[in-house]
Amino acid sequence: LNNKKQINIGFIGFGEGAFEMSMGFKSEGLYVNFYDVLQDNLKYIDIFREKAIKSEAKRMTSIKSLAIESDIIVSAVTSDTCIEAANSIKPYLTENHYYIDINSVSPITKRKIFEIIRSKTLKFIEAAVIGTIPGKQHKVPMLICGEFAKDFYKLMTPYNMNLTVIKGEIGTATTIKMLRSVFMKGIATLLIETLSAAFECNVFDLVYNSIKDTLENRTFDELTNRLICGTAIHSNRRKHEMDEVINTLKSTKNQYLMSKGTRDSLDWIDSMDLKNYFKGEMPAEYIRVLEAISKNKN
Amino acid sequence: LNNKKQINIGFIGFGEGAFEMSMGFKSEGLYVNFYDVLQDNLKYIDIFREKAIKSEAKRMTSIKSLAIESDIIVSAVTSDTCIEAANSIKPYLTENHYYIDINSVSPITKRKIFEIIRSKTLKFIEAAVIGTIPGKQHKVPMLICGEFAKDFYKLMTPYNMNLTVIKGEIGTATTIKMLRSVFMKGIATLLIETLSAAFECNVFDLVYNSIKDTLENRTFDELTNRLICGTAIHSNRRKHEMDEVINTLKSTKNQYLMSKGTRDSLDWIDSMDLKNYFKGEMPAEYIRVLEAISKNKN
Repeated sequence: LNNKKQINIGFIGFGEGAFEMSMGFKSEGLYVNFYDVLQDNLKYIDIFREKAIKSEAKRMTSIKSLAIESDIIVSAVTSDTCIEAANSIKPYLTENHYYIDINSVSPITKRKIFEIIRSKTLKFIEAAVIGTIPGKQHKVPMLICGEFAKDFYKLMTPYNMNLTVIKGEIGTATTIKMLRSVFMKGIATLLIETLSAAFECNVFDLVYNSIKDTLENRTFDELTNRLICGTAIHSNRRKHEMDEVINTLKSTKNQYLMSKGTRDSLDWIDSMDLKNYFKGEMPAEYIRVLEAISKNKN
Repeated sequence: LNNKKQINIGFIGFGEGAFEMSMGFKSEGLYVNFYDVLQDNLKYIDIFREKAIKSEAKRMTSIKSLAIESDIIVSAVTSDTCIEAANSIKPYLTENHYYIDINSVSPITKRKIFEIIRSKTLKFIEAAVIGTIPGKQHKVPMLICGEFAKDFYKLMTPYNMNLTVIKGEIGTATTIKMLRSVFMKGIATLLIETLSAAFECNVFDLVYNSIKDTLENRTFDELTNRLICGTAIHSNRRKHEMDEVINTLKSTKNQYLMSKGTRDSLDWIDSMDLKNYFKGEMPAEYIRVLEAISKNKN
């Protein structure tokens, strides 16, 4: 009736993220082991005991036991210790082990970790977690990359992991996550700068509704095209307008960090003289602008 | 059959914007006059003559004649000369004149202009042009503000001007425009920073589609709520993540001006310790976050 093969998952590092994922894996009927360098520290020993009881995860007495008892090693340590973690378990890895690194680290660090363990197992999975684990547990969306990413996808999708396989060299999944962050974290702070100034100046509803109308009455493709092509041609005028905007924010004692970034970005774009490159005509597609910026850079 | 009253419009300054609007007013059957300080300059005399012929606008020989021959004075000069323009026409204004300032200047400058002319006419219209005039001509959307803004709206809407009356003191329309600019110009440069890096790193489609999905699968209200409330609680973690993002942009030789602004904004938000203020719970509505920021500031 059940074709699922029993899988043992071993967490190196058992902080909040690992614990939450373990709760999810437990609900899928999987076995979970863990080893955390702090687990025997008297300050934390009770916390780890409690987490182990709640998630029915088995505390391993050594990193060696963790490797022996687990099919999939999940590195869920702190960003600054993920290389150390890889080095510490390396002697005990075999070619059958999957090693998945879910830490939020740079593409370069992900590649370094692969270099450390590749002589033992090629089943390295670079994972980039999109969003936060609490609430979603093991179902949190992840981009995964690596030679065996497709196999890992097939193995774990039946247990409701939400995996998207990304082609390309190790680091690609993380690069996508990082570049997504440029936009998503940026739009969040941009909204805060805009709306908190509007709130202070008693024009909240008008500013909010004006932006809402502009965003909701066109598709993302239309919006992107209009904004990128317009900026390419009008960077000089808009740069000066941003000076006025910054003055207004300053005089009303509002924050202007994002506006400063916008002003400086317009200055950077203006320095490429794209208006001249496009002979004063707005290009029809934003991709022409990205190509022009790329040419200008290289 | 036609209840429209004949109106004479007088432009102080007859650059591209004024000329384009004149073309539109002509098509509505209105009369246009203009006076530009450069109109007798030998370098520009032919250009003004050509514009006058095309738009059928009458060139006035003095600012005095412009005032006498026009019902509505439109100040469309350069940002740094709009105060000078108001001073120069002031002696010839009467209480029947509308004086509409469409220049892109700060709310403070708009108020200064009102102070200059108010002893002659109270019919001062603060206008904030949203978007660009070429292509839209006199139909370009404008926010207008002032004691007589409603009357101006009634007078000019039959001629297809696209006016929105804003309540509040002079400067309010411009404040709305400026704060709208914080967001609209910011999201444009943010898209350019994100997508040009994605283009360079050969992950364009994946980054683009991931952002597109996130924006298109929720309303603006949902997006704003999620982004602002999430940032309030997770500012510390996200600040550190932005450091990694910036390192990635640097190491791939991409621009990071907006990301720097985002990182610094998160640092600013983090300094308010909103996580503690909200007792670790994500607030349900973003307006709570804006209130908390406001409290923190005042």
